[in-house]
Amino acid sequence: MTKKIGITEVALRDAPQSLIATRMPMSDMLPILDKLDKVGYYSLECWGGATFDSCLRFLNEDPWERLRILRKHCPNTKLQMLFRGQNMLGYRHYADDVLEYFVQRSVANGIDIIRIFDALNDIKNLQTAIKAAKKEGATAQVAISYTTGPVFTTDYYVKYAKQIEEAGADSICIKDMAALLTPYKTYELVSALKKAVQLPIQLHTHYTSGLASMCLLKGIEAGADVIDTAISPLALGTSHAPTESMVAALQGTEYDTGIDLKVFGEIREYFMKLRKKYIESGLLDQSMLATNTKALLYQVPGGMLSNLLSQLKQAGKAEQLEDVLQEVPRVRKDAGYPPLVTPTSQIVGTQAVFNVITGERYKMCTNEFKDLVAGKYGTTPMPIDEEFAKKIIGDQPRITCRPADLLKPELDTLRKECAEWTEQEEDVLSYAMFPKVATDFFKKRAAAKYGVDEKHADAQAQIHPV
Amino acid sequence: MTKKIGITEVALRDAPQSLIATRMPMSDMLPILDKLDKVGYYSLECWGGATFDSCLRFLNEDPWERLRILRKHCPNTKLQMLFRGQNMLGYRHYADDVLEYFVQRSVANGIDIIRIFDALNDIKNLQTAIKAAKKEGATAQVAISYTTGPVFTTDYYVKYAKQIEEAGADSICIKDMAALLTPYKTYELVSALKKAVQLPIQLHTHYTSGLASMCLLKGIEAGADVIDTAISPLALGTSHAPTESMVAALQGTEYDTGIDLKVFGEIREYFMKLRKKYIESGLLDQSMLATNTKALLYQVPGGMLSNLLSQLKQAGKAEQLEDVLQEVPRVRKDAGYPPLVTPTSQIVGTQAVFNVITGERYKMCTNEFKDLVAGKYGTTPMPIDEEFAKKIIGDQPRITCRPADLLKPELDTLRKECAEWTEQEEDVLSYAMFPKVATDFFKKRAAAKYGVDEKHADAQAQIHPV
Ligand SMILES: [Co+2]
Ligand SMILES: [Co+2]
Repeated sequence: MTKKIGITEVALRDAPQSLIATRMPMSDMLPILDKLDKVGYYSLECWGGATFDSCLRFLNEDPWERLRILRKHCPNTKLQMLFRGQNMLGYRHYADDVLEYFVQRSVANGIDIIRIFDALNDIKNLQTAIKAAKKEGATAQVAISYTTGPVFTTDYYVKYAKQIEEAGADSICIKDMAALLTPYKTYELVSALKKAVQLPIQLHTHYTSGLASMCLLKGIEAGADVIDTAISPLALGTSHAPTESMVAALQGTEYDTGIDLKVFGEIREYFMKLRKKYIESGLLDQSMLATNTKALLYQVPGGMLSNLLSQLKQAGKAEQLEDVLQEVPRVRKDAGYPPLVTPTSQIVGTQAVFNVITGERYKMCTNEFKDLVAGKYGTTPMPIDEEFAKKIIGDQPRITCRPADLLKPELDTLRKECAEWTEQEEDVLSYAMFPKVATDFFKKRAAAKYGVDEKHADAQAQIHPV
Repeated sequence: MTKKIGITEVALRDAPQSLIATRMPMSDMLPILDKLDKVGYYSLECWGGATFDSCLRFLNEDPWERLRILRKHCPNTKLQMLFRGQNMLGYRHYADDVLEYFVQRSVANGIDIIRIFDALNDIKNLQTAIKAAKKEGATAQVAISYTTGPVFTTDYYVKYAKQIEEAGADSICIKDMAALLTPYKTYELVSALKKAVQLPIQLHTHYTSGLASMCLLKGIEAGADVIDTAISPLALGTSHAPTESMVAALQGTEYDTGIDLKVFGEIREYFMKLRKKYIESGLLDQSMLATNTKALLYQVPGGMLSNLLSQLKQAGKAEQLEDVLQEVPRVRKDAGYPPLVTPTSQIVGTQAVFNVITGERYKMCTNEFKDLVAGKYGTTPMPIDEEFAKKIIGDQPRITCRPADLLKPELDTLRKECAEWTEQEEDVLSYAMFPKVATDFFKKRAAAKYGVDEKHADAQAQIHPV
């Protein structure tokens, strides 16, 4: 009857991404890695998502080097990354050869579990990534982008879960990025998925609306196998349920995690110091730590709400927020009900703002909205009406195949483009994700190397600049 | 099948007491009272506990005037107070005439529900208060001081609940001040109490260890009727589960609260501003808002842990904390297993420190520990060993009756003592609770009155000091 519940610690990836815009440098992680490695986590989510971009753009860190350090200091714990399917870690669709090579290098440098998701829940955008992960011997977990709306019934998720199982994934994650799950909805959904598929089910939900720990508990009662949590100093608010609290809640029950609460003493203390530092520097805003049920009220992610408001303010139409919030579900319906997650939340939100402030629906359309209607992001959960598509994209052909099938291999071209800067074979992948940002990073790296040599020279000459 | 769950909002009493040392002045409450009154709460906990002391000592407010203002601005919501049985709101046992008069004036000034508890769970210390509340037409709720330890089985609580029902209480609250409850312990306890007694069950637990919302949810599933929550800006940490989150979690289920989430919009916004103000002034420490499972690890309240450490530090023996934590359960056992809540947590804690730092158990005993052993606080959950008692208090007689039975009526004496300062009949009760503090307050009040007259005189004479 006893079933050990696994814990994925998100202190190194999603917690900093949710609370401090992914600005946690490697130097803040390093001192605590050996202790994290000894906890007995199911896995440590520590790479991918926005960390890659943040390393190159803001932290002047090589993401690959970060991964190697994480691997070296956590030899006993599975390392997990977040991967946006055919989008990978960038903002466009990539050809399969780039994707396969990225997965190969990720696993070679230390990744054990690749969590793959698609904004449209289009299985076609996940197939190559699943195969690549399995080929490299990694665990291929597919995350369902959870959302609400008339088509997102339990049946919808059950069908998608079956597609995921058929595609060869090793496990399924319910990814509730917008914190829209409630405890009893979670219970119903997990129960249905457990009945429909044989795969282990993992739960990922944010604390934003203050329901996360209750959702995890009810999910576990319904059969969830692994849950995502954040060490308490980086928990709550827009982050996750506190790790220690979930361990304590399950201790001594049939769902015991097998983790001893005592192991968190020094880890919590360490992260409390970081938390304090982030708050004092202004990086962590205390208002992010309070819960907010606004997202539940409007059924849109919290981040999207603030984006809408700021777009309206720029247009001097802040008073039309309520109209825009009424328009969002209509635009979603027209566009085939995309889940609201990056990038679809921005695409739908901006279009809803345009529809309201111009006073005429679809008088102005963004290119991204046109691409969405044209099928360039993949197949939407519901078909888009022919008439509507014609209105938006005219006679432009609509894509119904896998968008990546239209892409030619591009790795060789990318290699040539960045050849002058590359110092390791993984560099081409950094370049592929963020050509401009990676090139800037490469330049700084080269300059620093030169600078280091200069220093050595100075040291030898006994010249110490103050 | 549907059962409406009631919500007691603690934003005006326990939340400020837990987060900002009860330093919320009436001026911070006033602007939002009419909105709170329209929510549809089961009750608004807003008076008693430490608020009375804080009004007189720190905020220069008449607690009775505060109650009248609360009543005036919240005509539609039941007002609730916390009352320490025969200790009332002070720090000693009071004669029945004082208690009865206090209850009478509380109800006359606006209180609807009196939550009464005793640190030792000794029903004798509650009987007069229950009778007095009922006589005045108020709801008499008895709160069980929840604690852990070998004698605190479900059976123990069931027996106490039956005593409470027999004593004539209208409802029972499980008061988990130290946040020691876990979700499945809550489920078991509430189930057992619902089976044993006919009274409605209310749940009060703190977020300290991060388990509160899960405990409330499992408690509701087990049959709890009303839960205590705090509006989100004053929730989490050492406070309570967020009100909006619990309303959202139950919405549309068989446990719906009947409250519309939209009603919290402006209320949350208002309290977010207060929260920001308290954080910026240093009154609210951000570290109090993070969860901490330490209390669960040692099974002692969080506040007691920090007290023990500070006592040890003063003695230069901080390294003996682990020894003291081992000693606490032994002292509790010797002293008949008192729950660890004010004042017993201090009494047991200090004695444990003495036992460790002197190197000989009970070589030094505090007077309070002697009183506890002598029965002056009431009957302990388990009998105290005769031999042990003799060692601690020698041949001093032990009290087995109701401690207040040994007290003569004292209201007339108190009235005479403070006669020169009283301006309203309730003043004698303020004086009874805190003779010194109340007298200082009375003096300031008189001076202010004089000062106001002075100002008027100045104004008339057209003299305006800068
Ligand atoms: Co997330
Ligand atoms: Co409390």
